Amino acid sequence: MITLNFEKATDGLMPAIAQDEKSGLVLMLAYVNREAFEKTVETGKAHYWSRSRNKLWLKGESSGNVQMVKDILVDCDEDTVIYRVEQIGGAACHLGYRSCFFRKVDKGRLHIVEEKIFDPAEVYGK
Amino acid sequence: MITLNFEKATDGLMPAIAQDEKSGLVLMLAYVNREAFEKTVETGKAHYWSRSRNKLWLKGESSGNVQMVKDILVDCDEDTVIYRVEQIGGAACHLGYRSCFFRKVDKGRLHIVEEKIFDPAEVYGK
Repeated sequence: MITLNFEKATDGLMPAIAQDEKSGLVLMLAYVNREAFEKTVETGKAHYWSRSRNKLWLKGESSGNVQMVKDILVDCDEDTVIYRVEQIGGAACHLGYRSCFFRKVDKGRLHIVEEKIFDPAEVYGK
Repeated sequence: MITLNFEKATDGLMPAIAQDEKSGLVLMLAYVNREAFEKTVETGKAHYWSRSRNKLWLKGESSGNVQMVKDILVDCDEDTVIYRVEQIGGAACHLGYRSCFFRKVDKGRLHIVEEKIFDPAEVYGK
């Protein structure tokens, strides 16, 4: 059995980094509890715990852009995981970008450094 | 000015992912508060907030394996950052591995998938 330390954070959630398994692009960071982690292992699709909705979240349940999990990596402290994924639809961010990290800090401001892959209004409705 | 949401987590800390700027390898995840983030921007060296020691932490202050920050990426929710770094010494993990994520889940167990770069006993003393 795998030992993971879900109790380290005060809210019992552990960060999970989703990384594109081919390009190495970091797509997003979300949180998992034991249920979300086990559901991910069981189904091969990335599940998280939504902090805003306070419920289990199958990534892509609205957009269809699920993440097929190819590998799961665990860190030395057993309090963070990486899902190495194939991102269906090519974009992880609900704003239509490949990665949620689509902006970089430059001279004290944020600059967009990625192209939009889809229009959120079309995917999620207005 | 950059808006970052340090207040989202109950402990006022935000996850910061360190990623090797050349290979794309995710090296580690640690936490930052505003002080650690600003110190990183100011010095170009990755600073975190140590949760175990409850103090500002210049990564590499003991080992010399500092992280030279080349770019900082910010996510859509402004509650997570990526430090794209050059890892001095080649290894980020205190256990001597290139990445803290040196194990993967395989058939319900953790398997080491990286080589050790240094011997922790030599670097940190016994």
